[in-house]
Amino acid sequence: MLRTNLGLRIPKGMRDLLPEEIAVQEGLEEKILTLFRQWSYQKVLTPTLEYSACVQPDVEQEDSLYKFFDREGRILTLRPELTIPIARLVSTRMRGGEFPLRLCYGADVYRNTTVRHREFRQVGVELVGSDQELADAEVIALAVEAIAGLGLDNYQFNLGHMGIFSGLMLEAGVDEGIQTQLEEALARKDMVGVESCVIQSGLPGRVQELLLRLPHFHGGEEILDEVLAWSERPAIREAVESLRRIYQYLNYFGVQANVSLDLGILRGFSYYTGAVFEGYVPGMGFPVVEGGRYDALYGDFGIPQPATGFAIHLGNLLEQFPLSAVKGSDVLVYGSDAKQIISQCQALRSQGKRVEMALGVLGEDEAQKIMLQKNIKQILYVE
Amino acid sequence: MLRTNLGLRIPKGMRDLLPEEIAVQEGLEEKILTLFRQWSYQKVLTPTLEYSACVQPDVEQEDSLYKFFDREGRILTLRPELTIPIARLVSTRMRGGEFPLRLCYGADVYRNTTVRHREFRQVGVELVGSDQELADAEVIALAVEAIAGLGLDNYQFNLGHMGIFSGLMLEAGVDEGIQTQLEEALARKDMVGVESCVIQSGLPGRVQELLLRLPHFHGGEEILDEVLAWSERPAIREAVESLRRIYQYLNYFGVQANVSLDLGILRGFSYYTGAVFEGYVPGMGFPVVEGGRYDALYGDFGIPQPATGFAIHLGNLLEQFPLSAVKGSDVLVYGSDAKQIISQCQALRSQGKRVEMALGVLGEDEAQKIMLQKNIKQILYVE
Repeated sequence: MLRTNLGLRIPKGMRDLLPEEIAVQEGLEEKILTLFRQWSYQKVLTPTLEYSACVQPDVEQEDSLYKFFDREGRILTLRPELTIPIARLVSTRMRGGEFPLRLCYGADVYRNTTVRHREFRQVGVELVGSDQELADAEVIALAVEAIAGLGLDNYQFNLGHMGIFSGLMLEAGVDEGIQTQLEEALARKDMVGVESCVIQSGLPGRVQELLLRLPHFHGGEEILDEVLAWSERPAIREAVESLRRIYQYLNYFGVQANVSLDLGILRGFSYYTGAVFEGYVPGMGFPVVEGGRYDALYGDFGIPQPATGFAIHLGNLLEQFPLSAVKGSDVLVYGSDAKQIISQCQALRSQGKRVEMALGVLGEDEAQKIMLQKNIKQILYVE
Repeated sequence: MLRTNLGLRIPKGMRDLLPEEIAVQEGLEEKILTLFRQWSYQKVLTPTLEYSACVQPDVEQEDSLYKFFDREGRILTLRPELTIPIARLVSTRMRGGEFPLRLCYGADVYRNTTVRHREFRQVGVELVGSDQELADAEVIALAVEAIAGLGLDNYQFNLGHMGIFSGLMLEAGVDEGIQTQLEEALARKDMVGVESCVIQSGLPGRVQELLLRLPHFHGGEEILDEVLAWSERPAIREAVESLRRIYQYLNYFGVQANVSLDLGILRGFSYYTGAVFEGYVPGMGFPVVEGGRYDALYGDFGIPQPATGFAIHLGNLLEQFPLSAVKGSDVLVYGSDAKQIISQCQALRSQGKRVEMALGVLGEDEAQKIMLQKNIKQILYVE
């Protein structure tokens, strides 16, 4: 049936990968997963489709899920990320494993949003079963090394802690509606929105000032002391001291120079509970790495376990890398006798050569032309 | 939020892959794709989501598509196979390429059916731009070598031709409704259904007899002469002689012994037009390889090109292979000083070792226990 209009097109937000493009994506993924394996993370894979009841996204993200019914009438969702599906997997088939578990993945994720890519590749890790700051530092250092290993210059990581904001809210007894608005405005770095929330909040003046200053606490270890000068509340002190230890460990890992403290970070998924971080590369206005500690999620799946991890949005990084021509075959075999052509091709293949077989009768000129067009190293005429 | 019921479960027809399972799947896929590259096929990838108007399935398969709306209100489908999406890709971004094009892929496909797996991995090739029987033979031989290369014993391929059935129908002027019923019954190898259709058909007795005999034409080259003894109609003669040449080429490729002629094959997708084939392995009641010639599809996309190809249902083959324990790390580093532990881990990693870092303070006994449980080669205490 003749295709017209949509029948010839690719859906919005989707893309095809040509040979030279998929070579780049697979090369980057293999490099990163090799590093993950070196840090003793083991690969797992969850399905593309999950029950919506499992994925249970943040309300504000519900809108961006691809949802539909299966033949039993249940609502399915295309996975928007891997952290929750892996929690489902660990809490079922892997619950008897040796914790801490170190798991990693490379998979496509799907978000029905208005941004450029609605399907994109993610690679990431989950470190499940340790509440130690050493675990936080391990995944942050691994994320930094993964990006560094791709040969990108001037990448930058920011490190914050959910406990500072939530400590402020908890201790000031803020209304939940305002807290959500504030959190969203801070996550968007929408300072006009933050200010309007703060004014409505009825919070003590000092807390208001601290909230407005949060996004400006960005830099080295000195900002931790600055925050403590503003507030000595126990929850805030706890978060600050935790960040201090993690930041020190990052120094031991040799990656501290690439990580700034940034107390204004509030990550987009509501499951984060502790240290959170994001990585940027120049020329991209959104983080290419997102991660952090999420100590409550496994409890929701019936096996309480502290956990931390991150995802790299590999699909969004592709444009940072030049495409190179795909390697051509070693030899084009041509001639006029099918039996001889086939035998020659099979013999060369058994020697490990990459062989292209001419399918029609070619003259030498044509064979030469194909060799050049397809970047083939050599032509071979058989009688 | 606490997960209950569906929130803890994996959707019907989906599966998780644990480290030892994904290692098997990736190992098989890599082996097959290496072979495809050796035969000069280049990898491409199309998106998971396509417009339904592009995929346009056979009516009888419409039922098994996962469908839903995107935010623009258009109907999207999870790809049920790759041949049509690759035709869309070739007819758009690759139409200026050097034909014949040899393309290959490894991707998940989705079918909302009642069978065991609704998401499964497929690897396959498309050879676009040659109407030569040498092209048919190339893809069949490649499919046989791909299965042989996995180390499976007693696999078996069957080779047929759509032209024999369609030639019979065309020349006998059969009503389209009955033709579709007959085709489906033959594809299912439902001989009771075939018989009932044949009786209703009002076809000449000789054609009726030939239809009933079709599934029994199974064996070596001799069956081709048998068919010609039944019917000398030009369309049938043409299909028979084409099969004869392909079968001869398979001999030159050294794979003829693994391929039987089977004139009862009618493949499940309506786009097939010529030689069609399927591969079986013992213990699996459905084909693990399906392929054939489809010379009309590219015309539907506005660039008429003959084409042939096949898909291997890799996801369904996994159970044929034993799982082996995942390789543990080279060394577990433990101690009581974070700085020393981290430095030692980083030093060993820079030497290429796979290193697991202990996250809590361990005694030697505990370290020994973890080493055994996780199959780690060695433990290292640092002061």
